[in-house]
Amino acid sequence: MYRFALLFICLLFTTNHLLVAQTDEDAFFIKEIYNTALTKGKAYEWLYHLSENIGGRLAGSPQAAAAVEYTKQLMDTLGMDEVSLQECMVPHWERGEKEVVRIVNSYQIGSLELKALSLGNSIGTGDNGLTAEVIEVQTLDELDSLGFDKVNGKIVFFNRPLDPTKLNTFSAYGGAADQRVFGASRAAKYGGVAALVRSLTTRNDNVPHTGVMIYEEGIPQVPAIAISTNDANLLSRLLKKEPVNVYMSNTSRNLSKKKSYNVIGEIKGSEFPNEIILVGGHLDSWDVGGGAHDDGAGCVHALDVIQVLKRLNYKPKRTIRCVMFMNEENGQAGAIAYRDESDAKGEFHMAAIESDRGGFTPRGFTCDADKEIFEEKFRKITDWLPLLQPYGLDLKKGGSGADIARLKPQKGLLFGFEPDTQRYFDYHHTDIDRIDAVNKRELQLGVAAIASLIYLLDQYGI
Amino acid sequence: MYRFALLFICLLFTTNHLLVAQTDEDAFFIKEIYNTALTKGKAYEWLYHLSENIGGRLAGSPQAAAAVEYTKQLMDTLGMDEVSLQECMVPHWERGEKEVVRIVNSYQIGSLELKALSLGNSIGTGDNGLTAEVIEVQTLDELDSLGFDKVNGKIVFFNRPLDPTKLNTFSAYGGAADQRVFGASRAAKYGGVAALVRSLTTRNDNVPHTGVMIYEEGIPQVPAIAISTNDANLLSRLLKKEPVNVYMSNTSRNLSKKKSYNVIGEIKGSEFPNEIILVGGHLDSWDVGGGAHDDGAGCVHALDVIQVLKRLNYKPKRTIRCVMFMNEENGQAGAIAYRDESDAKGEFHMAAIESDRGGFTPRGFTCDADKEIFEEKFRKITDWLPLLQPYGLDLKKGGSGADIARLKPQKGLLFGFEPDTQRYFDYHHTDIDRIDAVNKRELQLGVAAIASLIYLLDQYGI
Repeated sequence: MYRFALLFICLLFTTNHLLVAQTDEDAFFIKEIYNTALTKGKAYEWLYHLSENIGGRLAGSPQAAAAVEYTKQLMDTLGMDEVSLQECMVPHWERGEKEVVRIVNSYQIGSLELKALSLGNSIGTGDNGLTAEVIEVQTLDELDSLGFDKVNGKIVFFNRPLDPTKLNTFSAYGGAADQRVFGASRAAKYGGVAALVRSLTTRNDNVPHTGVMIYEEGIPQVPAIAISTNDANLLSRLLKKEPVNVYMSNTSRNLSKKKSYNVIGEIKGSEFPNEIILVGGHLDSWDVGGGAHDDGAGCVHALDVIQVLKRLNYKPKRTIRCVMFMNEENGQAGAIAYRDESDAKGEFHMAAIESDRGGFTPRGFTCDADKEIFEEKFRKITDWLPLLQPYGLDLKKGGSGADIARLKPQKGLLFGFEPDTQRYFDYHHTDIDRIDAVNKRELQLGVAAIASLIYLLDQYGI
Repeated sequence: MYRFALLFICLLFTTNHLLVAQTDEDAFFIKEIYNTALTKGKAYEWLYHLSENIGGRLAGSPQAAAAVEYTKQLMDTLGMDEVSLQECMVPHWERGEKEVVRIVNSYQIGSLELKALSLGNSIGTGDNGLTAEVIEVQTLDELDSLGFDKVNGKIVFFNRPLDPTKLNTFSAYGGAADQRVFGASRAAKYGGVAALVRSLTTRNDNVPHTGVMIYEEGIPQVPAIAISTNDANLLSRLLKKEPVNVYMSNTSRNLSKKKSYNVIGEIKGSEFPNEIILVGGHLDSWDVGGGAHDDGAGCVHALDVIQVLKRLNYKPKRTIRCVMFMNEENGQAGAIAYRDESDAKGEFHMAAIESDRGGFTPRGFTCDADKEIFEEKFRKITDWLPLLQPYGLDLKKGGSGADIARLKPQKGLLFGFEPDTQRYFDYHHTDIDRIDAVNKRELQLGVAAIASLIYLLDQYGI
């Protein structure tokens, strides 16, 4: 339809007609993309399968293997020129039995079990668990200032909330994540026997949030478990009045690495096949819940972009490559394997777009690149804003995505899809990150937003 | 704190210092508003009470009376200069017994009860209900074209979906609402015995949506009931293969009018007390669910704006008036009473802001005014965009709100608070419009957005 309109416009204008035609053709095609994503989109249906039937899919798990198989089969049906698996060796962590965190000696409340989830990579407590007095800190620095005498033999409770005044909840998360990632080793450095970590969420509720933690080399490994924000608030209140002992038990363990895969499909470009436009998300999630927003949404965004462009019979000039990265959550083995092979082949990713901030209403894209090219290229793409702003989409400077950031030395543009951030940390790394937390229209609009940017990148290059 | 910063800036700049100082003071104060709304906001807690403890509060119901009492008491605690009730006479419609809509003779599926809700103002079927063959139409015009012979004695089924390709779901709703509002009378005009109406929602689900319908004078009144979109799709599929008879029963009725009230509180302006800035929402809702988004959110937005400004010890130059309008949903008796008294007193509403599009993440405000003043005044306020855009807020031309639109002849600016629209019609006029459909941060951000605009209106006038 837009081609007829284009023809009409070309007939009307005798000067500058190419410019006018181009802009109008673009506007028409982007509208077609939106109409298609909103009426013929598959993202929600695919996400239902990925998050509910397959479920949580931590790297190394049978569910992750099933997700590889499922998305490869999906790609096979999309009429791409090539679909392949790319091997990578992933960490293999298992949660084990249901973890227990119990207040055992409070004069105020007696014994109480807290809502808890072991952090990813955490070791277990051993069969008998452990019991120790709890000491609360807000920051890693505060722990340093307490030193060995005050920390030795204790469970260190990291209780710094996300800053509620930060509008972008990812900034709030970024400001609090160090306690989850590095808390256990810092505690152990001073003789701490375990870490309890306040869940990284903007809500006060009963839902514990897992996520990666990393052991520092040369420091004894101690268990690390997250507790819900309501329980963290309770524990903190108790500690203001009396010493509190906590019993912790978990059987988490790190097993030997396993083979897994990135799933990759591409449509070869007709004019510039060596200029690659990557679109992707990460296929793995945490083991609890369904990984619906994190990052099932990003995966189905990317897959449905292909479906929508194919349905519109779009023939790209450049190569569009769809990548489901494995193991973003605890090691990024997939991203590393991808980068290594791409560099070895001398590929050029002209652009890469990662969706890993959930399936909420789109706000635009953050953009990053090697500083040598960034300003000039970024200025160029902001010329497209009149085509994107009618859909509520902005382009701004900022980070891209954990999986694609390693492609920066190839000197293309790296984009992070940016939806509304307010609800993301209600669900992030929890048992409630499931399909019912995803709004179908919001998800579909994400597909349309990403497909529109890919269309412009493909049409005009950078 | 912002005052010290202001002082510092004034000392630094010797030229243009007033302009610089003003902008920075404004930016600091708006940041304070956001910090306060996000950390000391009461909106969510108040909405919990309004939607869960009081519940659905249709004008004329005991719940509506309780909501009047509750919000008046709340205003009394907020330290306003004056709090009052403004009388109005409201329609009094009752749903009666649970409505029944049942397919009675399908060869394909036998008998099946559909998810249904009587439309507001609908009469009942009588104790025995009614059974008739169903005829499906997409539009009122299509019904006209069928005429008496094809419609007489039948139940007319209006089945036009909301257009999914409209980005703003309110546009999609506006494009489909005529069948709900006018369908029954149009059916009756051609001998139709009742109207079945597809629920006005962007989803396909099992949730029926009520809402106002209006009987045309001089045409027999027939019952009107909404069915869920899934059931509408089913019924439509059946009708493609065979005639379908439906049994309908409801005991809805219109009773005599009842006395009710708008709830009004104000802070008198210190310099320009006769320039009124109104902020409000409507206190009534439909009887099902909790009226959380529609329009409990708008009410607590307005109330919390006052709480936040008071907490910041803000002394307005102009009069800030907080209004809980009664009976927006089926008659707007409150809005009419308010306008009549305001006009009679010769008041000037320099600005009015209505929040009636739910408690979702803010996107900005639509602005309207008498055409004599609109362009000039609108241009002036867009100077404030640099202060609002960092919070994701835009100012654009568009309608304001059903309750404040009648103030247009006073020649002030009328604003509609505009949050993200994607999820609104998942809940609108349903049993699931409850507190769990509201995200606390999104609600709080609405308070901050509205308070920020009020601050600028108060500081600079129009």
